[in-house]
Amino acid sequence: MFKLYTAPGTCALATHITLEEAGADYTAERLNFKANQQNSPDYLAINPKGRVPALVTDRGVLTETPAMLAYIAQTLPKAKLAPLDDPFAFAQVQSFNSYLCSTVHVAHAHKMRGARWATEESSFADMKQMIPKTMGACFALIEQKMLKGPWVMGEQYTVCDPYLYTVSLWLEGDSVDINATPKVADHFKRMSERPAVRKVMDAQKA
Amino acid sequence: MFKLYTAPGTCALATHITLEEAGADYTAERLNFKANQQNSPDYLAINPKGRVPALVTDRGVLTETPAMLAYIAQTLPKAKLAPLDDPFAFAQVQSFNSYLCSTVHVAHAHKMRGARWATEESSFADMKQMIPKTMGACFALIEQKMLKGPWVMGEQYTVCDPYLYTVSLWLEGDSVDINATPKVADHFKRMSERPAVRKVMDAQKA
Ligand SMILES: N[C@@H](CCC(=O)N[C@@H](CS)C(=O)NCC(=O)O)C(=O)O
Ligand SMILES: N[C@@H](CCC(=O)N[C@@H](CS)C(=O)NCC(=O)O)C(=O)O
Repeated sequence: MFKLYTAPGTCALATHITLEEAGADYTAERLNFKANQQNSPDYLAINPKGRVPALVTDRGVLTETPAMLAYIAQTLPKAKLAPLDDPFAFAQVQSFNSYLCSTVHVAHAHKMRGARWATEESSFADMKQMIPKTMGACFALIEQKMLKGPWVMGEQYTVCDPYLYTVSLWLEGDSVDINATPKVADHFKRMSERPAVRKVMDAQKA
Repeated sequence: MFKLYTAPGTCALATHITLEEAGADYTAERLNFKANQQNSPDYLAINPKGRVPALVTDRGVLTETPAMLAYIAQTLPKAKLAPLDDPFAFAQVQSFNSYLCSTVHVAHAHKMRGARWATEESSFADMKQMIPKTMGACFALIEQKMLKGPWVMGEQYTVCDPYLYTVSLWLEGDSVDINATPKVADHFKRMSERPAVRKVMDAQKA
Protein backbone atom coordinates (compact mmCIF):
# COMPACT_ATOMS: atom_id res chain seq x y z
CA MET A 1 0.00 0.00 0.00
CA PHE A 2 1.49 3.30 -1.18
CA LYS A 3 0.51 6.86 -0.38
CA LEU A 4 1.41 9.51 -2.92
CA TYR A 5 1.59 13.19 -2.05
CA THR A 6 0.70 15.25 -5.08
CA ALA A 7 -0.53 18.66 -6.27
CA PRO A 8 -2.37 19.55 -9.48
CA GLY A 9 -0.24 20.68 -12.42
CA THR A 10 3.01 19.35 -10.94
CA CYS A 11 5.52 16.67 -11.88
CA ALA A 12 3.82 14.40 -9.32
CA LEU A 13 1.45 13.49 -12.14
CA ALA A 14 4.11 11.22 -13.68
CA THR A 15 4.26 9.06 -10.57
CA HIS A 16 0.49 9.14 -10.17
CA ILE A 17 -0.08 7.80 -13.69
CA THR A 18 2.66 5.21 -13.19
CA LEU A 19 1.02 3.89 -10.00
CA GLU A 20 -2.23 3.59 -11.93
CA GLU A 21 -0.61 1.88 -14.93
CA ALA A 22 1.19 -0.54 -12.61
CA GLY A 23 -2.07 -1.51 -10.90
CA ALA A 24 -0.57 -0.46 -7.56
CA ASP A 25 -2.54 -0.38 -4.35
CA TYR A 26 -2.31 3.33 -3.48
CA THR A 27 -4.00 6.45 -2.26
CA ALA A 28 -3.20 10.00 -3.39
CA GLU A 29 -3.27 13.04 -1.14
CA ARG A 30 -3.36 16.46 -2.68
CA LEU A 31 -1.45 19.32 -1.08
CA ASN A 32 -2.73 22.88 -1.31
CA PHE A 33 0.15 24.85 -2.82
CA LYS A 34 -1.80 28.13 -2.56
CA ALA A 35 -1.80 27.65 1.21
CA ASN A 36 1.91 26.65 1.03
CA GLN A 37 1.04 23.27 2.53
CA GLN A 38 4.25 21.80 1.03
CA ASN A 39 6.15 23.83 3.64
CA SER A 40 3.92 23.03 6.62
CA PRO A 41 5.65 21.33 9.57
CA ASP A 42 3.50 18.21 9.05
CA TYR A 43 4.57 17.80 5.44
CA LEU A 44 8.21 18.75 6.04
CA ALA A 45 8.31 15.85 8.52
CA ILE A 46 7.40 13.58 5.58
CA ASN A 47 9.50 15.33 2.92
CA PRO A 48 12.01 17.86 4.27
CA LYS A 49 12.52 19.17 0.71
CA GLY A 50 9.05 20.75 0.79
CA ARG A 51 8.19 19.41 -2.65
CA VAL A 52 5.92 16.90 -4.31
CA PRO A 53 5.93 14.07 -5.20
CA ALA A 54 6.67 12.01 -2.11
CA LEU A 55 5.77 8.33 -1.97
CA VAL A 56 5.13 6.73 1.40
CA THR A 57 5.97 3.02 1.30
CA ASP A 58 6.05 0.45 4.09
CA ARG A 59 9.85 0.80 4.13
CA GLY A 60 9.87 4.60 4.32
CA VAL A 61 9.37 7.70 2.18
CA LEU A 62 10.82 8.10 -1.31
CA THR A 63 11.28 11.37 -3.18
CA GLU A 64 12.59 12.33 -6.65
CA THR A 65 10.54 11.36 -9.68
CA PRO A 66 13.14 9.23 -11.54
CA ALA A 67 13.83 7.18 -8.39
CA MET A 68 10.13 6.62 -7.74
CA LEU A 69 9.36 5.66 -11.34
CA ALA A 70 12.14 3.05 -11.42
CA TYR A 71 11.04 1.78 -8.00
CA ILE A 72 7.44 1.26 -9.09
CA ALA A 73 8.63 -0.52 -12.25
CA GLN A 74 10.90 -2.78 -10.19
CA THR A 75 8.43 -3.64 -7.43
CA LEU A 76 5.48 -4.25 -9.77
CA PRO A 77 7.32 -6.03 -12.59
CA LYS A 78 4.23 -7.64 -14.12
CA ALA A 79 3.24 -4.25 -15.50
CA LYS A 80 6.45 -4.29 -17.60
CA LEU A 81 7.05 -0.56 -17.20
CA ALA A 82 10.85 -0.77 -17.64
CA PRO A 83 13.33 -3.16 -19.31
CA LEU A 84 14.41 -4.65 -15.98
CA ASP A 85 16.51 -7.49 -17.42
CA ASP A 86 18.65 -5.34 -19.70
CA PRO A 87 20.95 -2.90 -17.85
CA PHE A 88 21.72 -0.87 -20.98
CA ALA A 89 18.05 -0.44 -21.92
CA PHE A 90 17.27 0.34 -18.26
CA ALA A 91 20.03 2.97 -18.30
CA GLN A 92 18.45 4.56 -21.37
CA VAL A 93 15.17 4.83 -19.47
CA GLN A 94 16.99 6.39 -16.54
CA SER A 95 18.93 8.74 -18.79
CA PHE A 96 15.73 10.04 -20.37
CA ASN A 97 14.09 10.54 -16.98
CA SER A 98 17.19 12.22 -15.58
CA TYR A 99 17.17 14.67 -18.50
CA LEU A 100 13.54 15.56 -17.86
CA CYS A 101 14.26 15.98 -14.15
CA SER A 102 17.53 17.92 -14.28
CA THR A 103 17.12 19.96 -17.46
CA VAL A 104 13.54 20.17 -18.77
CA HIS A 105 11.73 20.43 -15.44
CA VAL A 106 14.37 22.88 -14.22
CA ALA A 107 14.01 25.04 -17.36
CA HIS A 108 10.24 25.19 -16.78
CA ALA A 109 10.67 26.00 -13.07
CA HIS A 110 12.38 29.28 -13.98
CA LYS A 111 8.98 30.68 -14.93
CA MET A 112 7.36 30.60 -11.49
CA ARG A 113 10.16 29.66 -9.10
CA GLY A 114 12.86 32.20 -9.96
CA ALA A 115 13.22 32.97 -6.24
CA ARG A 116 15.06 29.66 -5.88
CA TRP A 117 18.02 31.13 -7.78
CA ALA A 118 17.77 34.93 -7.66
CA THR A 119 16.28 37.79 -5.65
CA GLU A 120 15.43 40.70 -8.01
CA GLU A 121 12.14 41.21 -9.87
CA SER A 122 14.13 42.10 -12.99
CA SER A 123 15.87 38.70 -12.86
CA PHE A 124 12.53 36.91 -12.52
CA ALA A 125 11.21 38.77 -15.57
CA ASP A 126 14.38 37.93 -17.48
CA MET A 127 14.05 34.24 -16.59
CA LYS A 128 10.37 34.25 -17.62
CA GLN A 129 11.04 35.64 -21.08
CA MET A 130 13.50 32.79 -21.72
CA ILE A 131 10.96 30.00 -21.08
CA PRO A 132 9.64 29.59 -24.63
CA LYS A 133 13.22 29.43 -25.91
CA THR A 134 14.62 27.01 -23.30
CA MET A 135 11.58 24.74 -23.27
CA GLY A 136 11.44 24.86 -27.07
CA ALA A 137 15.09 23.82 -27.30
CA CYS A 138 14.59 20.95 -24.84
CA PHE A 139 11.63 19.64 -26.81
CA ALA A 140 13.44 20.00 -30.13
CA LEU A 141 16.19 17.76 -28.70
CA ILE A 142 13.62 15.27 -27.40
CA GLU A 143 11.93 15.22 -30.81
CA GLN A 144 15.12 14.81 -32.83
CA LYS A 145 17.33 12.66 -30.61
CA MET A 146 15.38 10.91 -27.87
CA LEU A 147 11.76 10.00 -28.59
CA LYS A 148 11.94 6.79 -30.63
CA GLY A 149 8.18 6.52 -31.20
CA PRO A 150 5.50 5.57 -30.82
CA TRP A 151 6.59 5.48 -27.16
CA VAL A 152 9.73 7.12 -25.81
CA MET A 153 11.70 3.88 -25.86
CA GLY A 154 10.10 2.53 -29.05
CA GLU A 155 7.49 -0.20 -29.17
CA GLN A 156 7.46 -0.79 -25.42
CA TYR A 157 5.57 1.62 -23.14
CA THR A 158 7.75 2.52 -20.12
CA VAL A 159 7.85 4.91 -17.15
CA CYS A 160 9.40 7.49 -19.51
CA ASP A 161 6.01 7.96 -21.17
CA PRO A 162 3.96 9.35 -18.28
CA TYR A 163 6.93 11.57 -17.38
CA LEU A 164 7.16 13.01 -20.90
CA TYR A 165 3.39 13.47 -20.95
CA THR A 166 3.55 15.38 -17.65
CA VAL A 167 6.21 17.75 -18.92
CA SER A 168 4.47 18.13 -22.31
CA LEU A 169 1.37 19.35 -20.45
CA TRP A 170 3.39 22.43 -19.44
CA LEU A 171 4.14 23.48 -23.03
CA GLU A 172 0.97 25.44 -23.68
CA GLY A 173 1.45 27.59 -20.54
CA ASP A 174 5.11 27.98 -21.52
CA SER A 175 4.12 29.37 -24.96
CA VAL A 176 5.68 26.48 -26.86
CA ASP A 177 3.62 25.07 -29.73
CA ILE A 178 3.57 21.28 -29.29
CA ASN A 179 2.91 20.92 -33.03
CA ALA A 180 6.43 22.21 -33.74
CA THR A 181 7.46 18.74 -32.50
CA PRO A 182 5.12 16.32 -34.31
CA LYS A 183 6.38 13.14 -32.62
CA VAL A 184 5.88 14.72 -29.19
CA ALA A 185 2.41 15.94 -30.26
CA ASP A 186 1.51 12.44 -31.41
CA HIS A 187 2.86 10.96 -28.16
CA PHE A 188 0.83 13.46 -26.15
CA LYS A 189 -2.37 12.56 -27.99
CA ARG A 190 -1.80 8.84 -27.60
CA MET A 191 -1.07 9.28 -23.87
CA SER A 192 -4.27 11.34 -23.37
CA GLU A 193 -6.31 8.40 -24.62
CA ARG A 194 -4.95 5.81 -22.21
CA PRO A 195 -7.48 4.75 -19.56
CA ALA A 196 -4.97 5.18 -16.69
CA VAL A 197 -4.21 8.73 -17.82
CA ARG A 198 -7.89 9.65 -18.17
CA LYS A 199 -8.61 8.28 -14.73
CA VAL A 200 -5.81 10.24 -13.06
CA MET A 201 -6.60 13.45 -14.98
CA ASP A 202 -10.25 13.19 -13.95
CA ALA A 203 -9.23 12.61 -10.32
CA GLN A 204 -6.99 15.71 -10.50
CA LYS A 205 -9.88 17.84 -11.70
CA ALA A 206 -12.38 16.50 -9.15
CA MET B 1 35.59 -1.43 -22.85
CA PHE B 2 34.15 1.99 -22.00
CA LYS B 3 35.20 5.43 -23.14
CA LEU B 4 34.35 8.34 -20.87
CA TYR B 5 34.23 11.93 -22.08
CA THR B 6 35.17 14.23 -19.25
CA ALA B 7 36.47 17.71 -18.40
CA PRO B 8 38.32 18.86 -15.28
CA GLY B 9 36.22 20.31 -12.49
CA THR B 10 32.95 18.93 -13.82
CA CYS B 11 30.39 16.39 -12.64
CA ALA B 12 32.05 13.85 -14.97
CA LEU B 13 34.40 13.17 -12.07
CA ALA B 14 31.71 11.11 -10.31
CA THR B 15 31.50 8.67 -13.20
CA HIS B 16 35.28 8.63 -13.62
CA ILE B 17 35.82 7.63 -9.99
CA THR B 18 33.03 5.05 -10.24
CA LEU B 19 34.64 3.40 -13.28
CA GLU B 20 37.89 3.24 -11.34
CA GLU B 21 36.25 1.84 -8.18
CA ALA B 22 34.40 -0.76 -10.26
CA GLY B 23 37.63 -1.94 -11.87
CA ALA B 24 36.15 -1.18 -15.29
CA ASP B 25 38.12 -1.46 -18.49
CA TYR B 26 37.95 2.16 -19.71
CA THR B 27 39.70 5.13 -21.23
CA ALA B 28 38.97 8.78 -20.45
CA GLU B 29 39.10 11.58 -22.97
CA ARG B 30 39.25 15.13 -21.77
CA LEU B 31 37.39 17.88 -23.64
CA ASN B 32 38.74 21.41 -23.74
CA PHE B 33 35.90 23.58 -22.43
CA LYS B 34 37.90 26.78 -23.00
CA ALA B 35 37.90 25.91 -26.70
CA ASN B 36 34.16 25.03 -26.43
CA GLN B 37 34.96 21.51 -27.61
CA GLN B 38 31.75 20.26 -25.99
CA ASN B 39 29.87 22.06 -28.76
CA SER B 40 32.07 20.93 -31.66
CA PRO B 41 30.31 18.98 -34.43
CA ASP B 42 32.41 15.89 -33.61
CA TYR B 43 31.34 15.86 -29.98
CA LEU B 44 27.71 16.80 -30.69
CA ALA B 45 27.55 13.69 -32.86
CA ILE B 46 28.42 11.70 -29.73
CA ASN B 47 26.37 13.72 -27.24
CA PRO B 48 23.90 16.16 -28.83
CA LYS B 49 23.42 17.81 -25.42
CA GLY B 50 26.93 19.29 -25.64
CA ARG B 51 27.76 18.29 -22.08
CA VAL B 52 29.98 15.91 -20.20
CA PRO B 53 29.94 13.18 -19.04
CA ALA B 54 29.15 10.84 -21.91
CA LEU B 55 29.96 7.15 -21.70
CA VAL B 56 30.56 5.22 -24.90
CA THR B 57 29.65 1.55 -24.45
CA ASP B 58 29.52 -1.27 -26.98
CA ARG B 59 25.72 -0.84 -27.05
CA GLY B 60 25.78 2.92 -27.58
CA VAL B 61 26.36 6.21 -25.77
CA LEU B 62 24.91 6.94 -22.33
CA THR B 63 24.50 10.38 -20.79
CA GLU B 64 23.23 11.70 -17.42
CA THR B 65 25.26 11.00 -14.33
CA PRO B 66 22.63 9.11 -12.27
CA ALA B 67 21.89 6.78 -15.19
CA MET B 68 25.57 6.08 -15.79
CA LEU B 69 26.33 5.46 -12.12
CA ALA B 70 23.50 2.93 -11.79
CA TYR B 71 24.55 1.31 -15.07
CA ILE B 72 28.16 0.82 -13.94
CA ALA B 73 26.95 -0.64 -10.62
CA GLN B 74 24.63 -3.03 -12.46
CA THR B 75 27.07 -4.19 -15.12
CA LEU B 76 30.02 -4.63 -12.73
CA PRO B 77 28.14 -6.10 -9.75
CA LYS B 78 31.21 -7.62 -8.10
CA ALA B 79 32.27 -4.14 -7.02
CA LYS B 80 29.06 -3.91 -4.93
CA LEU B 81 28.53 -0.23 -5.70
CA ALA B 82 24.74 -0.32 -5.23
CA PRO B 83 22.20 -2.49 -3.35
CA LEU B 84 21.09 -4.27 -6.51
CA ASP B 85 18.95 -6.92 -4.80
CA ASP B 86 16.86 -4.51 -2.75
CA PRO B 87 14.60 -2.23 -4.84
CA PHE B 88 13.87 0.10 -1.92
CA ALA B 89 17.54 0.57 -1.01
CA PHE B 90 18.34 0.97 -4.73
CA ALA B 91 15.62 3.65 -4.94
CA GLN B 92 17.24 5.50 -2.04
CA VAL B 93 20.52 5.52 -3.96
CA GLN B 94 18.73 6.84 -7.01
CA SER B 95 16.84 9.43 -5.01
CA PHE B 96 20.06 10.80 -3.55
CA ASN B 97 21.71 10.94 -6.97
CA SER B 98 18.63 12.54 -8.53
CA TYR B 99 18.71 15.24 -5.85
CA LEU B 100 22.36 16.01 -6.59
CA CYS B 101 21.64 16.08 -10.32
CA SER B 102 18.40 18.09 -10.38
CA THR B 103 18.86 20.42 -7.41
CA VAL B 104 22.45 20.68 -6.11
CA HIS B 105 24.27 20.59 -9.45
CA VAL B 106 21.67 22.98 -10.90
CA ALA B 107 22.07 25.41 -7.98
CA HIS B 108 25.84 25.44 -8.57
CA ALA B 109 25.42 25.91 -12.34
CA HIS B 110 23.77 29.30 -11.74
CA LYS B 111 27.20 30.71 -10.94
CA MET B 112 28.81 30.26 -14.36
CA ARG B 113 25.97 29.15 -16.65
CA GLY B 114 23.35 31.81 -16.04
CA ALA B 115 22.99 32.22 -19.81
CA ARG B 116 21.09 28.95 -19.84
CA TRP B 117 18.15 30.62 -18.10
CA ALA B 118 18.47 34.40 -18.59
CA THR B 119 20.02 37.05 -20.87
CA GLU B 120 20.92 40.13 -18.78
CA GLU B 121 24.23 40.75 -16.98
CA SER B 122 22.25 41.97 -13.96
CA SER B 123 20.45 38.61 -13.77
CA PHE B 124 23.76 36.73 -13.94
CA ALA B 125 25.13 38.85 -11.08
CA ASP B 126 21.94 38.26 -9.09
CA MET B 127 22.20 34.49 -9.63
CA LYS B 128 25.86 34.52 -8.60
CA GLN B 129 25.23 36.26 -5.29
CA MET B 130 22.71 33.53 -4.38
CA ILE B 131 25.20 30.64 -4.76
CA PRO B 132 26.52 30.54 -1.17
CA LYS B 133 22.94 30.57 0.11
CA THR B 134 21.48 27.95 -2.26
CA MET B 135 24.49 25.63 -2.07
CA GLY B 136 24.64 26.11 1.71
CA ALA B 137 20.95 25.17 2.03
CA CYS B 138 21.41 22.06 -0.16
CA PHE B 139 24.35 20.90 1.94
CA ALA B 140 22.53 21.60 5.21
CA LEU B 141 19.75 19.29 4.00
CA ILE B 142 22.26 16.64 2.94
CA GLU B 143 23.97 16.87 6.34
CA GLN B 144 20.77 16.71 8.39
CA LYS B 145 18.52 14.40 6.38
CA MET B 146 20.44 12.38 3.83
CA LEU B 147 24.03 11.46 4.63
CA LYS B 148 23.79 8.47 6.97
CA GLY B 149 27.53 8.18 7.59
CA PRO B 150 30.23 7.15 7.30
CA TRP B 151 29.10 6.72 3.65
CA VAL B 152 26.01 8.31 2.14
CA MET B 153 23.97 5.11 2.51
CA GLY B 154 25.56 4.04 5.81
CA GLU B 155 28.12 1.27 6.19
CA GLN B 156 28.12 0.36 2.51
CA TYR B 157 30.06 2.49 0.01
CA THR B 158 27.91 3.14 -3.08
CA VAL B 159 27.84 5.22 -6.25
CA CYS B 160 26.34 8.05 -4.17
CA ASP B 161 29.74 8.61 -2.57
CA PRO B 162 31.81 9.70 -5.56
CA TYR B 163 28.90 11.86 -6.67
CA LEU B 164 28.68 13.62 -3.30
CA TYR B 165 32.47 14.03 -3.29
CA THR B 166 32.35 15.62 -6.77
CA VAL B 167 29.74 18.16 -5.72
CA SER B 168 31.49 18.82 -2.39
CA LEU B 169 34.60 19.80 -4.36
CA TRP B 170 32.63 22.80 -5.66
CA LEU B 171 31.91 24.21 -2.17
CA GLU B 172 35.11 26.17 -1.72
CA GLY B 173 34.68 28.01 -5.04
CA ASP B 174 31.03 28.57 -4.12
CA SER B 175 32.05 30.25 -0.82
CA VAL B 176 30.44 27.59 1.35
CA ASP B 177 32.45 26.42 4.34
CA ILE B 178 32.43 22.62 4.27
CA ASN B 179 33.09 22.59 8.02
CA ALA B 180 29.60 24.00 8.60
CA THR B 181 28.50 20.46 7.69
CA PRO B 182 30.80 18.18 9.72
CA LYS B 183 29.49 14.87 8.36
CA VAL B 184 30.01 16.11 4.79
CA ALA B 185 33.50 17.36 5.74
CA ASP B 186 34.34 13.96 7.22
CA HIS B 187 32.96 12.20 4.13
CA PHE B 188 35.04 14.48 1.88
CA LYS B 189 38.21 13.69 3.81
CA ARG B 190 37.58 9.94 3.76
CA MET B 191 36.87 10.04 0.02
CA SER B 192 40.10 11.98 -0.67
CA GLU B 193 42.07 9.14 0.86
CA ARG B 194 40.65 6.35 -1.31
CA PRO B 195 43.17 5.01 -3.84
CA ALA B 196 40.68 5.22 -6.73
CA VAL B 197 39.98 8.86 -5.95
CA ARG B 198 43.67 9.75 -5.69
CA LYS B 199 44.36 8.04 -8.98
CA VAL B 200 41.59 9.89 -10.82
CA MET B 201 42.44 13.25 -9.22
CA ASP B 202 46.09 12.81 -10.22
CA ALA B 203 45.05 11.92 -13.77
CA GLN B 204 42.88 15.06 -13.89
CA LYS B 205 45.82 17.24 -12.89
CA ALA B 206 48.28 15.60 -15.29
N1 LIG C 1 13.57 16.80 -8.48
C1 LIG C 1 12.24 16.70 -7.92
C2 LIG C 1 11.54 18.03 -8.09
C3 LIG C 1 10.27 18.14 -7.29
C4 LIG C 1 9.64 19.52 -7.46
O1 LIG C 1 10.33 20.52 -7.69
N2 LIG C 1 8.29 19.59 -7.34
C5 LIG C 1 7.59 20.86 -7.47
C6 LIG C 1 6.30 20.67 -8.27
S1 LIG C 1 6.59 20.27 -9.98
C7 LIG C 1 7.20 21.39 -6.11
O2 LIG C 1 6.81 20.61 -5.23
N3 LIG C 1 7.29 22.71 -5.88
C8 LIG C 1 6.84 23.32 -4.67
C9 LIG C 1 7.68 24.47 -4.24
O3 LIG C 1 8.68 24.78 -4.91
O4 LIG C 1 7.33 25.06 -3.20
C10 LIG C 1 11.48 15.58 -8.62
O5 LIG C 1 11.76 15.31 -9.79
O6 LIG C 1 10.63 14.92 -8.00
N1 LIG D 1 22.35 16.37 -16.01
C1 LIG D 1 23.70 16.18 -16.56
C2 LIG D 1 24.42 17.51 -16.52
C3 LIG D 1 25.69 17.51 -17.32
C4 LIG D 1 26.35 18.89 -17.29
O1 LIG D 1 25.66 19.92 -17.15
N2 LIG D 1 27.70 18.92 -17.42
C5 LIG D 1 28.42 20.19 -17.41
C6 LIG D 1 29.71 20.06 -16.59
S1 LIG D 1 29.41 19.80 -14.84
C7 LIG D 1 28.82 20.56 -18.83
O2 LIG D 1 29.19 19.70 -19.62
N3 LIG D 1 28.76 21.86 -19.17
C8 LIG D 1 29.22 22.33 -20.43
C9 LIG D 1 28.41 23.47 -20.99
O3 LIG D 1 27.41 23.87 -20.33
O4 LIG D 1 28.76 23.95 -22.06
C10 LIG D 1 24.44 15.11 -15.75
O5 LIG D 1 24.15 14.96 -14.57
O6 LIG D 1 25.25 14.37 -16.32
